[in-house]
Amino acid sequence: MPESPADTGVLAPVLTPFRDDLSPEAGRFLAHCRWLLEQGASGLAVFGTTSEANSLSVDEREALFDRLIEAGIPAERLMVGTGCCALTDTVRLTRHALARGCRRALMLPPFYYKAVEDEGVYRAIAEAIERVGDERLRVYLYHIPPVAQVGFGLPVVERLLRDYPRTVAGIKDSSGDWTNTRRLLEAFPGFGVFAGSEAYLLETLRGGGAGCITATGNVNMAAIRALFDAWRSPQAEPMQAEITALRGAVQAHPMIPALKAILAHHRGDPGWRTVRPPLLALDAGSSRRLIDALERRRFRLAA
Amino acid sequence: MPESPADTGVLAPVLTPFRDDLSPEAGRFLAHCRWLLEQGASGLAVFGTTSEANSLSVDEREALFDRLIEAGIPAERLMVGTGCCALTDTVRLTRHALARGCRRALMLPPFYYKAVEDEGVYRAIAEAIERVGDERLRVYLYHIPPVAQVGFGLPVVERLLRDYPRTVAGIKDSSGDWTNTRRLLEAFPGFGVFAGSEAYLLETLRGGGAGCITATGNVNMAAIRALFDAWRSPQAEPMQAEITALRGAVQAHPMIPALKAILAHHRGDPGWRTVRPPLLALDAGSSRRLIDALERRRFRLAA
Repeated sequence: MPESPADTGVLAPVLTPFRDDLSPEAGRFLAHCRWLLEQGASGLAVFGTTSEANSLSVDEREALFDRLIEAGIPAERLMVGTGCCALTDTVRLTRHALARGCRRALMLPPFYYKAVEDEGVYRAIAEAIERVGDERLRVYLYHIPPVAQVGFGLPVVERLLRDYPRTVAGIKDSSGDWTNTRRLLEAFPGFGVFAGSEAYLLETLRGGGAGCITATGNVNMAAIRALFDAWRSPQAEPMQAEITALRGAVQAHPMIPALKAILAHHRGDPGWRTVRPPLLALDAGSSRRLIDALERRRFRLAA
Repeated sequence: MPESPADTGVLAPVLTPFRDDLSPEAGRFLAHCRWLLEQGASGLAVFGTTSEANSLSVDEREALFDRLIEAGIPAERLMVGTGCCALTDTVRLTRHALARGCRRALMLPPFYYKAVEDEGVYRAIAEAIERVGDERLRVYLYHIPPVAQVGFGLPVVERLLRDYPRTVAGIKDSSGDWTNTRRLLEAFPGFGVFAGSEAYLLETLRGGGAGCITATGNVNMAAIRALFDAWRSPQAEPMQAEITALRGAVQAHPMIPALKAILAHHRGDPGWRTVRPPLLALDAGSSRRLIDALERRRFRLAA
């Protein structure tokens, strides 16, 4: 049984807006978080890949997180990315979130060294859990091998679940490989499996999964949430087709710059385009093609 | 013409010792740094891959760096790893080093996002240089695609050298691909090209390169330095063969745990074996085989 509204449903991995000088812009960030909740987001997965979180220092992440809490965003609606290359950073960020009432941590494995053994990935997470030492903690494993390269294979998930059954609550599977998601659903009934893309939302729910945490939720939350609410209805298949097609139009471009370009255009706020290096803002031509493609799909950003 | 002894020669990417609780152990670290300099190290490349630097927080890196400076390790013998995923961390670490008189920064590109464009890698380094804004700064690009995945292609190197000719001083090529090192040597005469392995030391010096920055320097510094000093002599080829063979014996195992196992054994100090997750200490059997293989090569760790 879910402990909070954010344990199932559709979560947005929230984009992080930057000023021209590349500092995080808390006002725009907060407004976007509120809008996402109004649009039906079950929760906000702040400081993930889409958030450019690894392009932020630990201090910057903590400061931005505090702004959300101070502004009244409910801690139980947040799932905060805390997995870093350095165990000490992971522990610090996780404790920081817990101290502010946010118990859900989305943990990348340490991702600098490659071809590490399962034992090493297991120890990284187990050690973080032990050091945080807080019964409230709920860890969501962040499996995104196309980016992090290092991931959570099924044997590691199984061992973590066996050793920390109360703490290890779920996984975000951003492998882009439905076979992997299906295996997770089959192997661990009741485990909080979130697809990393709304393209697999219906299949994930049919397989007993928790929902999805998806980048395009930043611009298309209401439609994705509607499918979550109606997944047993006859309308589910066409709804799935519609949101998958919209995702396809966005994915024709680099995802993070594309999402920021959409917000910049539809909010009339060019500042949204800014990304930190090594990412690059979408160029004018690509932005135009993206906006046109979305208009052909009758896309409207809700006010 | 070199500005300091560390601009050419053999640098050790210094291993970071940890206590049982995985905190960095400054005493052992300092003793190891002093020993490396006594063994002939031209310089100490602290906080690189071999140092498990990305497994340390920025605070931990700064604290450990300060211990070296306070203990009297000359700042001009240090090349400090400062390249992080977050621009703000890179800038902070680089400024910290400069404020203590260390002008040489070894910069990884931001390594979380993959398949980034050359323009993004260029901007990450250019922005760091601009923000640090210190004429003393000497940047060494850290090209290690087998680990970081993101690297510095020749077009990026060329552009950085064109735009920051005084600042961008060299590269550590840990591609493991001699063809790439040769291309760098041919394309940029006078550029400080360090091979990332002593296996290419002689070839690098013959091609006009600066030397090497090599993990195995942590245990075999004197012999590698001897080749650097004698590279034009008739003895160079057999010296190269000897150090390459020793490296081969170490490389039969995961490099960082293997080097730590060698120090642990020959110093009678088991604490040296400790690594941070996701790395794993060498198991007893592998350690034994490694030590035996080195003994067959008559390896002795200098006192």
